[in-house]
Amino acid sequence: MIVRGDIIFTKEATKFTIFEDSYLLIDEAGKIEGIVQEIETGREYTDHRGKLIIPSFVDLHLHANQFVNCGLGNDEELLGWLEKYTFKEEVKFKDLDYAREIYKLVLNRLWEAGSLRSVIYASLYTKTTSLLFDLALESGLSSYIGKVNMDRNVPEYYSETTEESLAGTREIIERYGQISHLIKPIITPRFVPHCTSESMAGQGKLSIEYNVPVQSHINESKKEIEWVKSLHPEALNYSSVYDEYDLFGEKAPALMAHCLHNTKEEIELMKKRQVYPVHCPESNANLSSGIMAVKKMLEEGLPVSLGSDISGGHHLYLPYQMVLAIQLSKMKGRLEDDMSHVIGLPEAIYMATKSGGSFFGKTGSLETGYSADFLVINTDSLMNIKEERSIKEKLEKFIYIGSAANIEARYLEGKLLEKPFKE
Amino acid sequence: MIVRGDIIFTKEATKFTIFEDSYLLIDEAGKIEGIVQEIETGREYTDHRGKLIIPSFVDLHLHANQFVNCGLGNDEELLGWLEKYTFKEEVKFKDLDYAREIYKLVLNRLWEAGSLRSVIYASLYTKTTSLLFDLALESGLSSYIGKVNMDRNVPEYYSETTEESLAGTREIIERYGQISHLIKPIITPRFVPHCTSESMAGQGKLSIEYNVPVQSHINESKKEIEWVKSLHPEALNYSSVYDEYDLFGEKAPALMAHCLHNTKEEIELMKKRQVYPVHCPESNANLSSGIMAVKKMLEEGLPVSLGSDISGGHHLYLPYQMVLAIQLSKMKGRLEDDMSHVIGLPEAIYMATKSGGSFFGKTGSLETGYSADFLVINTDSLMNIKEERSIKEKLEKFIYIGSAANIEARYLEGKLLEKPFKE
Repeated sequence: MIVRGDIIFTKEATKFTIFEDSYLLIDEAGKIEGIVQEIETGREYTDHRGKLIIPSFVDLHLHANQFVNCGLGNDEELLGWLEKYTFKEEVKFKDLDYAREIYKLVLNRLWEAGSLRSVIYASLYTKTTSLLFDLALESGLSSYIGKVNMDRNVPEYYSETTEESLAGTREIIERYGQISHLIKPIITPRFVPHCTSESMAGQGKLSIEYNVPVQSHINESKKEIEWVKSLHPEALNYSSVYDEYDLFGEKAPALMAHCLHNTKEEIELMKKRQVYPVHCPESNANLSSGIMAVKKMLEEGLPVSLGSDISGGHHLYLPYQMVLAIQLSKMKGRLEDDMSHVIGLPEAIYMATKSGGSFFGKTGSLETGYSADFLVINTDSLMNIKEERSIKEKLEKFIYIGSAANIEARYLEGKLLEKPFKE
Repeated sequence: MIVRGDIIFTKEATKFTIFEDSYLLIDEAGKIEGIVQEIETGREYTDHRGKLIIPSFVDLHLHANQFVNCGLGNDEELLGWLEKYTFKEEVKFKDLDYAREIYKLVLNRLWEAGSLRSVIYASLYTKTTSLLFDLALESGLSSYIGKVNMDRNVPEYYSETTEESLAGTREIIERYGQISHLIKPIITPRFVPHCTSESMAGQGKLSIEYNVPVQSHINESKKEIEWVKSLHPEALNYSSVYDEYDLFGEKAPALMAHCLHNTKEEIELMKKRQVYPVHCPESNANLSSGIMAVKKMLEEGLPVSLGSDISGGHHLYLPYQMVLAIQLSKMKGRLEDDMSHVIGLPEAIYMATKSGGSFFGKTGSLETGYSADFLVINTDSLMNIKEERSIKEKLEKFIYIGSAANIEARYLEGKLLEKPFKE
């Protein structure tokens, strides 16, 4: 398969690689064979001349059960927001009919947004989590999906026992661990304050036993960090609690959302283990959490990536997160009087594609050997009379003022993806 | 005229005034007579039950000639951005055909966004500025429009003499000063570094002679402030340069965009003169300028209002500015370790309606005696199955995740406004 268009991606964090009016060659396994300027006369190709061909987006942190709450409760901080808005919505997912309707919307919106790969917090309930697996398998998208574990410090109406956490997690892994290379389970302790030591120890063992990766939250708000300290006074820091229970990237890959208040020791451990710090700028801004040191962490060689974190964030559409990541880095630079914090558009795209994509293997770039996961972007509606723009400027306009409506086609592993569900 | 619906507005900065399923009474002059729970049986009304009725938005700072650049050049700071992107676009407005096309789009987008009142930087060119007046008069919207004056430190290809600045400004005021209560001229020195003392003195005199208000920029970036200091070493601060030339609210009202790095003395002077600080959060974030102390300035009793500042900001649609204003206030609070900086949704709406609206007289609120400027908001498309929301929550969802498509009708002075121009 061959696709013709203006190809742009971020091989490196700080600059774009651009092939004007070129051909993307894709092999039968859905991998990229290369990019060429010319092909033999007569060879067939899909013609997207004048349109951008960019890697599809990777959303490494979102809560499917909070989708309905997007845009609500933003005058609260993290812990109040959980109690007043979030748990009350998540508990509704005991009802499978309700869950089915919302999950279909979430998968449709991920498809629309061009976030063809994602890592998802599903439900406390094992049956509901299974339902999301079934729908995700049907959708054609690629996701890691986690049954959310929470067996302490949660309201009685929305809780489970340690045994239920571990049995549910095992059940999900056994049922869905080996049936698709696109949809996979991920071990999901909600965060330290919501999981007993027994639960965390059990989850760590499951991760090793089945070689399943881990996702959680870390160092999001100062009150949360104090809480963790009071629960685990013996621990050196927040990370070492996860690490104690084999949940911090030693035996299996780990994703950690937020990472706003990491200590130097924690950064060192994350580097050693190549833990993914998932930056969720909209959520961090809405919940007054703070601003991640994105640029420094990228320079340290950490695989910093992006997450919409709905409904802490209110937009599933990742370009909003990219723009806000850039803006917040500038504000951190200005307010801390250190402009070396500032990132630009390349870093934002890199986090949302190649960096996040590496969690799935060779995905998120359009280099040879990578999975042919890409979007076709038509920027015509963003251009005014007499407006002629370079490829980079077209991409900039798409990210800043475009919308999902500018995404004309979505390809995963070289195959055109249609909208998953009827609405 | 009577309109029925869920009425919500901000009489005060910090809280909503809500009338559930009520009737808004409007007199023949287009002013609000009151809000009642019941009317006599048989009286006719426009039925917007289940929809929100909110004040229309007021955008107090935008550059019509930069519209095409929205979303471009955001990896630059203010002064580089002016040279590399902005002047090159603005100079194109010498071509009246080009200007006509773009101005129609700007007015259409203001209408779509529900920003029915605005204060606009038009063009350096007097003929082009006249054209915007003519189109604005045709549009039915309400605006103050300024011919942009800049007679020093600008590129030769995009400049004018002091005489041209003053003659052009006088010509605009004489032609458009008295022909409409909706469309009015405003004196517009671009900013201190771009206007000679002679030009500023002349503009101040015109402001007094014709009783015309003034708009400009102030204290946006630190480099700009140093530049002003080097140009006017005798001045106490940036504000006192404007004040020296009667451009700072003593004789006629003044609007000052940005106000990021005001000194205590400048705040005092602004209070005394009731100068409008116009907060442009998206622009301030994009150009790495900093974060305005919105909450403190509101508490000081200053009429802080909102501006899209396109194309420093990339969205003309004001709810994006409201959300970012909230988010940036939280980041300022967190990074400066002083959470008293934080504003919530009420303050954001207040700035975009009643506070900004006061520049036009009694507009921007739905209190008795105010101009009946309002929007009808249909939030159905933002609600999912089984989702029942309060009036405040509906408004929150509209501001955070809604779009212009949720605005079902726009009324100015009690009259339904249709889209100004065909596209």
